[in-house]
Amino acid sequence: MTKVHAYAALDATTPLQAHVIERRDLKPTDIQIEILYSGVCHSDLHQARSEWGPAIYPLVPGHEIVGRVTAVGEQVSRFKVGDLAGVGCMVDSCQHCDSCAEGLEQYCENGATWTYNSRERDTKLPTHGGYSTDIVVTEGFAVHVPETLDIRGVAPLLCAGITMFSPLNHWKIGKGHRVAIVGLGGLGHMGIKLAVAMGADVTLFTTSQGKADDAIRLGAHHVVFSTDRDAMKAARGSFDFIISTVPSGHDLNPYLMTLKRDGQLVIVGALEPVGLSGMPLVGQRRSVAGSNIGGIAETQQMLDFCAEHGIVADVEMIRMQDINEAYERMLKNDVKYRFVIDMAAYRAEQESAAD
Amino acid sequence: MTKVHAYAALDATTPLQAHVIERRDLKPTDIQIEILYSGVCHSDLHQARSEWGPAIYPLVPGHEIVGRVTAVGEQVSRFKVGDLAGVGCMVDSCQHCDSCAEGLEQYCENGATWTYNSRERDTKLPTHGGYSTDIVVTEGFAVHVPETLDIRGVAPLLCAGITMFSPLNHWKIGKGHRVAIVGLGGLGHMGIKLAVAMGADVTLFTTSQGKADDAIRLGAHHVVFSTDRDAMKAARGSFDFIISTVPSGHDLNPYLMTLKRDGQLVIVGALEPVGLSGMPLVGQRRSVAGSNIGGIAETQQMLDFCAEHGIVADVEMIRMQDINEAYERMLKNDVKYRFVIDMAAYRAEQESAAD
Repeated sequence: MTKVHAYAALDATTPLQAHVIERRDLKPTDIQIEILYSGVCHSDLHQARSEWGPAIYPLVPGHEIVGRVTAVGEQVSRFKVGDLAGVGCMVDSCQHCDSCAEGLEQYCENGATWTYNSRERDTKLPTHGGYSTDIVVTEGFAVHVPETLDIRGVAPLLCAGITMFSPLNHWKIGKGHRVAIVGLGGLGHMGIKLAVAMGADVTLFTTSQGKADDAIRLGAHHVVFSTDRDAMKAARGSFDFIISTVPSGHDLNPYLMTLKRDGQLVIVGALEPVGLSGMPLVGQRRSVAGSNIGGIAETQQMLDFCAEHGIVADVEMIRMQDINEAYERMLKNDVKYRFVIDMAAYRAEQESAAD
Repeated sequence: MTKVHAYAALDATTPLQAHVIERRDLKPTDIQIEILYSGVCHSDLHQARSEWGPAIYPLVPGHEIVGRVTAVGEQVSRFKVGDLAGVGCMVDSCQHCDSCAEGLEQYCENGATWTYNSRERDTKLPTHGGYSTDIVVTEGFAVHVPETLDIRGVAPLLCAGITMFSPLNHWKIGKGHRVAIVGLGGLGHMGIKLAVAMGADVTLFTTSQGKADDAIRLGAHHVVFSTDRDAMKAARGSFDFIISTVPSGHDLNPYLMTLKRDGQLVIVGALEPVGLSGMPLVGQRRSVAGSNIGGIAETQQMLDFCAEHGIVADVEMIRMQDINEAYERMLKNDVKYRFVIDMAAYRAEQESAAD
């Protein structure tokens, strides 16, 4: 075991603080990654505060991880020391169920092993995420990060990016499709960039003029204010595909009415009860589905797509020590559009302090 | 115009009563049908009582119509006098929108013309349904009824049958699929027969031992009592496809949890708010869709399929004069599984009285 510097929640109410954790020794198929950048996802906050079921403390959040490989196990074939590597929301899965066999590890029938707030399959030791200087992960759950992209903006692709890419990819969205994104945050801004790059005609549903302006800057072709009844009525029957990034329960019916016949609305944020009536579905054979991040192969596909189209997230860099303030700002939606922690700087500070 | 005998609701509260209505003169593409049997659908009752928005009175319900062609317009090419013909929920549509072009007249973007409680596109006169001795309809909205089937049991196929056939057909259900039907009534019993004939492994969700026994008699392979928590838990992740025939708002979440990854639940009954949380959708990329009857070509396909497999509805024949009692029994689910009015007998009585 190797001791590494991290930031952890020690319980549900205390702010995150500096903490030393242990990383496992390298197994033959493992790679070790020196973390350079770690994105801050809304679910980090939820889990640090034990809002998604009892958390495992100390809890080191972070599942948008980019870094450089510093060591490889003897059987590792896909990575070498010095490679850029990324780790997203998962670090393992059963590898033998139907979902794993199809490369859909996120839907593993025996439950994926999440990057933090989860337990390793063999040792049952808690997993720890990217708010740390180093991580050890089996190479099968790491992805190659294109050297051509600004890697600070790549970190959020590992969760926010793949969460939006996967439904667009699964439902084969592209040229000729009219797509709408509900909400402009970490997920929504990636949805606009990705859907535009896929060739779709893209609309943002929002309630804010500031977000409307930003959406156009990000490449969206149209904006509809969801509070404007006339605009919502005029939008009826116009979209092939909608992704709702709203992170809590909300009324789906007004958005469903803007779908064409056979149109699909996909929920990626809300896990709670949502408002739904049978009428908008039955009336035009519309569907509501859910989608959860993406598989490892699809995550690689997404990164390659982003490299091809020069897509990264819009980020605001923060120091590790400022994570608690960042959480408070995140709760007020005061971020454009993802906080990314400069883990390289944090490592340097720790090393310098140790001298 | 021709006067014909019918039963009509004159307002929202008075029981249905004998009434004389006028049928239009035969247009070049029209056929006239002497109605032999008319099925009784739950929506007849809803609309007769003005429960689905303001009804057009006098209202003659009935959209499960089987009869014999008694006259054809000069341009009619698909029917001749003496043919068995069926009319379902629609008698016209715009014929030029995308949905109509694809044979999905039920989703006509300009609104289909319903068989009753609707208005003719040209004259704006009210349409009148199958609780009448004769109907005049454009041949494009009539279907051929196979002579080999018991036509009393064919009438309910025109609404209940196609309502279940269309989603099974659209989502390509067949051999190797595990299908569940929620609820055993007019729709549910057709769902079991059709899904079994398509080669699926079929389960009924019910709360009643009597329905469970009936489901097996109708060909279902399994029954799950939705009130049995252990049984519902054991059924998790087992179905590819579920059709919920529940006619009012209900909680979808327990049924969704029994779907496999990428499984689909289709609502055909409930138009009201239903219970739905994001979690069961997001967790395994499940979907909820709606489906409304079927197009005219698909209705013909369904009848041909039923002829090939010897499928008709289980019916209880009633006299036209007993419709109000039938409605009361229908409200108590006291029907196995569809009332069908003997319109041939009613015609004979009217003719004999006129002598």
